[in-house]
Amino acid sequence: MPQAVAYATPSARAPFERTTIERREPGPTEVLVDIAWAGICHSDIHTARNEWGEAHFPLVPGHEIAGTVAAVGSEVTKFAVGDRVGVGVFVDSCRKCPECRSGREQYCSGGGMVGTYNAVGRDGRWNDGGYSTSITVEQDYTLRIPDGLDLAEAAPLLCAGITLYSPLRHWGAGPGKRVAIVGMGGLGHMGVKLAAAMGAEVTVLSQSLSKQEDGRRFGAAAYHATSDPETFRTLRSSFDLIISTVSATLDLDAYLSLLVVDGTLVNVGLPEEPLSLRAGSLNGGRKQLAGSNIGGIAETQEMLDFCAEHGLGATVERIGGEDITAAYDRVVASDVRYRFVIDTSTFAAEQG
Amino acid sequence: MPQAVAYATPSARAPFERTTIERREPGPTEVLVDIAWAGICHSDIHTARNEWGEAHFPLVPGHEIAGTVAAVGSEVTKFAVGDRVGVGVFVDSCRKCPECRSGREQYCSGGGMVGTYNAVGRDGRWNDGGYSTSITVEQDYTLRIPDGLDLAEAAPLLCAGITLYSPLRHWGAGPGKRVAIVGMGGLGHMGVKLAAAMGAEVTVLSQSLSKQEDGRRFGAAAYHATSDPETFRTLRSSFDLIISTVSATLDLDAYLSLLVVDGTLVNVGLPEEPLSLRAGSLNGGRKQLAGSNIGGIAETQEMLDFCAEHGLGATVERIGGEDITAAYDRVVASDVRYRFVIDTSTFAAEQG
Repeated sequence: MPQAVAYATPSARAPFERTTIERREPGPTEVLVDIAWAGICHSDIHTARNEWGEAHFPLVPGHEIAGTVAAVGSEVTKFAVGDRVGVGVFVDSCRKCPECRSGREQYCSGGGMVGTYNAVGRDGRWNDGGYSTSITVEQDYTLRIPDGLDLAEAAPLLCAGITLYSPLRHWGAGPGKRVAIVGMGGLGHMGVKLAAAMGAEVTVLSQSLSKQEDGRRFGAAAYHATSDPETFRTLRSSFDLIISTVSATLDLDAYLSLLVVDGTLVNVGLPEEPLSLRAGSLNGGRKQLAGSNIGGIAETQEMLDFCAEHGLGATVERIGGEDITAAYDRVVASDVRYRFVIDTSTFAAEQG
Repeated sequence: MPQAVAYATPSARAPFERTTIERREPGPTEVLVDIAWAGICHSDIHTARNEWGEAHFPLVPGHEIAGTVAAVGSEVTKFAVGDRVGVGVFVDSCRKCPECRSGREQYCSGGGMVGTYNAVGRDGRWNDGGYSTSITVEQDYTLRIPDGLDLAEAAPLLCAGITLYSPLRHWGAGPGKRVAIVGMGGLGHMGVKLAAAMGAEVTVLSQSLSKQEDGRRFGAAAYHATSDPETFRTLRSSFDLIISTVSATLDLDAYLSLLVVDGTLVNVGLPEEPLSLRAGSLNGGRKQLAGSNIGGIAETQEMLDFCAEHGLGATVERIGGEDITAAYDRVVASDVRYRFVIDTSTFAAEQG
């Protein structure tokens, strides 16, 4: 069995500890990936702290994975040793249901997608995620990272990138479309870059103007503070599409008032409190409130190719394995610009 | 000035009284319509009882109007005396905004559509509605009722019909689509007829099975009671489109669970309480919650032509002017199958 060095948390809110885990020998259609970088997604933190109430410990999180192929199974046709690859939020799905057959594996109705971590794989074991030096994955759930992309900047694309790319495409972001991105964190900053690269006119709606300079550098044409009530008066009926990346409870009626007729507000965060809105906020302009969850495999590949074509990666802070615990606190405090990525080459050095 | 006999309510919840009102001589681009039938819409009742807090008394409601042209202005080109015509929820709009220019006058952003009653028209007077023997209307806001349609059965199409037709068309009801209609009242029964005529597979979701026979006669392939919890288990992930016609507060999470991935739940009722739902009910399947309000003028004409082509009218109970007050109570008690239409020929007789 291939061994991997990993960082695991033994229980909710406990510090991360270096450990050794076993990975599968690649089956006929699997690849063994040497992980170079793993992004820290806010959902890693929710899971590691057991805030979603379903965590299995010890837990090795991580579903924003970038690396290179180290070995391939006998029937693997899509990848060769040395290829640059990524692994995202899920590593399997039923492959048979209408959603899987139409490239919407993330909504698999045949039992649901199998998470990259904190889920039981086909081998009956709990999956360990990307805070690790290697992982074994089915080739059909492995993505190709184009040469033009830096691996560290590519890792967060596997979750943060596709979470924004998919709804931007699905609801038609492009030239002539006015798109607002709510929140300028790990998700939001990718939304700005992607929507701008698609040709849309992008506005950031952030709590304050503190990240305005970055927002404009990422491609935003305008930047407004949502803490200023004037924002909601000025921007009334201004957007075709609004994507909210925040998990805080929003005044949905206020945000819906910023949409034009036939506009759509898409929520990609997962607020814990129920959403509340007046029916008239939708009926008054045939508006839509929608939700979206990552993207399918083919669409994720399309996103990576799009990012390479447009020279887009995540804006990252690079850390070592010993920094994970402190990084979690900084993410929760919104003190990261804009995504932590863990350098797994530090794992071996620290091991000595 | 043309005189008309009308039924007005002098104050909130007071009985309707026969009265005489003045109508404008048709201006150059206006037509004078002899009203034959006026439908009773639930919003008439909300307004007449001042439940929406904006009613101007004395009030002559009515925005489901069918009749014949009695006179035309000097520049009228679209209609001639004797033509069968209808008037719906609005009689004017700004005609200049993006919405008006794109046939979405119902969402006019240039001051809003001008209601057929309880609104101030261009002449600066409060408009009187269709519970009346005549009305003067701009030709551009007048609809043609095709010969094949009975005028009494056509009247409710001008509000109830278009309120369902527009979202059914907008969200793609047709062959291969599974559509659920929530509620089997004045709106819902038209939704069943229209969606079935469009070729969709229609299911009715009603509180009880009491109207099942009618539902199937109107074109529903299936009929389920929402009071039975089994309904929500059986129909999980079953519909591409759900249109809710009820104003009661729904368990939106339960209804959203009945949608397939990428499905849409459209609310055409106007519940007074805020809508509440879990974000995950949308995110889990890229679902949409939407609202819709009647339809534009061209679309309303398209709907009338569609109804004539398919032999569709509302299912109505015909009443006289003296029956209006009692009819309101019956509507509130859901005791009408499925729309009351007022016969204005009774007004003159009662006048004697």
